Amino acid sequence: MITIKDILRARRRIVSYIYQTPLEKSYNLSSLIEGEVFLKLECQQLVKAYKIRGAYSKLLKLSPHERQKGVMAVSSGNHGACISFAASILGLNNVHIYVPEVTPEIKKEKIKRYGAHLTVKGKNYDESHQLALMACKEYGYTWIDSCSDEDVIAGQGTIGLELMQELPDLDAIVVPIGGGGIITGISIAVKAINPAVEVIGVQTEACPAMLVSMKDNVFYETYPTKPSICEALVGGVGEIPFKLSKQCIDEILIVSEDNIKRAVVELIKHDKVLAEPSAAVGVASLLEYPDRFRNMRVGVVITGGNIDFALLQQLLGGYNK
Amino acid sequence: MITIKDILRARRRIVSYIYQTPLEKSYNLSSLIEGEVFLKLECQQLVKAYKIRGAYSKLLKLSPHERQKGVMAVSSGNHGACISFAASILGLNNVHIYVPEVTPEIKKEKIKRYGAHLTVKGKNYDESHQLALMACKEYGYTWIDSCSDEDVIAGQGTIGLELMQELPDLDAIVVPIGGGGIITGISIAVKAINPAVEVIGVQTEACPAMLVSMKDNVFYETYPTKPSICEALVGGVGEIPFKLSKQCIDEILIVSEDNIKRAVVELIKHDKVLAEPSAAVGVASLLEYPDRFRNMRVGVVITGGNIDFALLQQLLGGYNK
Repeated sequence: MITIKDILRARRRIVSYIYQTPLEKSYNLSSLIEGEVFLKLECQQLVKAYKIRGAYSKLLKLSPHERQKGVMAVSSGNHGACISFAASILGLNNVHIYVPEVTPEIKKEKIKRYGAHLTVKGKNYDESHQLALMACKEYGYTWIDSCSDEDVIAGQGTIGLELMQELPDLDAIVVPIGGGGIITGISIAVKAINPAVEVIGVQTEACPAMLVSMKDNVFYETYPTKPSICEALVGGVGEIPFKLSKQCIDEILIVSEDNIKRAVVELIKHDKVLAEPSAAVGVASLLEYPDRFRNMRVGVVITGGNIDFALLQQLLGGYNK
Repeated sequence: MITIKDILRARRRIVSYIYQTPLEKSYNLSSLIEGEVFLKLECQQLVKAYKIRGAYSKLLKLSPHERQKGVMAVSSGNHGACISFAASILGLNNVHIYVPEVTPEIKKEKIKRYGAHLTVKGKNYDESHQLALMACKEYGYTWIDSCSDEDVIAGQGTIGLELMQELPDLDAIVVPIGGGGIITGISIAVKAINPAVEVIGVQTEACPAMLVSMKDNVFYETYPTKPSICEALVGGVGEIPFKLSKQCIDEILIVSEDNIKRAVVELIKHDKVLAEPSAAVGVASLLEYPDRFRNMRVGVVITGGNIDFALLQQLLGGYNK
């Protein structure tokens, strides 16, 4: 299926288009677990989201015919913005993005800013997903799945290459799971280079879709989600990530909304890092389960920085320690 | 005195130790001036401050004897943290930093964290400066001036090389002025490559030391400063920056405390960039004088990200547009 070779090829395709983001020690989190914690700052990536890697990886493999026909995707925000941005750099027109109605204004603006056609449809991610898929078939566009496309996953996997290049002897890598694309890509890269590294996924209490899929051994393509500030970590899992989950994911930790909020604030306060809630769940898992990581050397992937401003005001306003 | 050759040599010394930081378009500020604004994100530099460039540039030129004897500096925070950090990477012990009593706790912590000896002395920067200089002479340390040392200035000048490498046809570059080290280094690099680029300095109403020095043609080594949230932009100017000011600085804009606060908030809200107030004065100058930049292509140097958390809470709490 997807191998380290695909990820190395993806790196060759995308390397001149993206940032190799910093991997920085967090003194605050290191002292919390009495170990060493390093933050992979994809919140400082182009468009402030790791998904730019998968977007370029996919778009750079399209045939001339596919480029001309057009592409379509559904997105909670960052996937769409990244496709729109990468397509504009690569000179593609005919780019169509569906977003669910709950998408923050800032993410909708970003998608439109770079030139894609935006359609707001569907009460939630899963509904928007179904509607977009139907439209895509009807018009003959190329579908760009955010978490179950081999080229997209290979693109996200380049984060794993960078982690191993800088710190090949990490004990564990902690990665948010929405559909599961990023953890799958990272895990394939990392375990090919150092199989001893634990790859730990994090999901919210509001949507433990991958955890339940793995327990039940059932592919939950949609999943009922409770309210959450992590609008990027909702709905079902991707088919490829599900199929590879047993091989790629060593454990999944579930974090509370409270610890996610705390994680966003602590990253700002101590590390001067601006992360969106969905991107801070890895840090939330350290706050919630410090003993799980005691004395370890841990890489935590901070996946994006597009935090809603009103939410940030609210989080900082309510923080009194 | 200092030439582009010194800056190219500084780059060769420090390039493997620092980040080449992103230069990112700000859509919000571009639309404000109906032109194009690019942010040079030194707030994402190591230690979240451009001063790491000057610190490495200086420390990597010390003789074995000087290394062994030790170094000393005075700092409002970032200069000290950067020397402490770079010295720890380069294996220097015997590093002594003076800070004035007004220094935010987080900056003091950072200086100590990387191993330097910290002395809190002096009511303000100028007083701390005098006390440190006396101690330095007494013990025979090498003095590392944050703004009037040729090797330090050459280090800061590498920012100018990066700007010209990415966007050699900028109309103007906007740089904060405290002692004047960074604008001097950047200007020497930039004007050697493209003399048509305007180099515009920004100071606060609370401390227009360089503006007054240039008007009076007098080297004000100390300067009475009113209260300001920009604790890095206080006190007098450096001797070398003063001597080179007519050649390096095309204009100085003065910004109000209100616009500095607004600049910090707008950077977070629209660009997802966390900057400290002293680092945001360039953006404040665009907010205060948009007509000065109308239709121009402007690079704005965001010099650091070490914002005090309580201050940030206060700024976001009071923001209602």
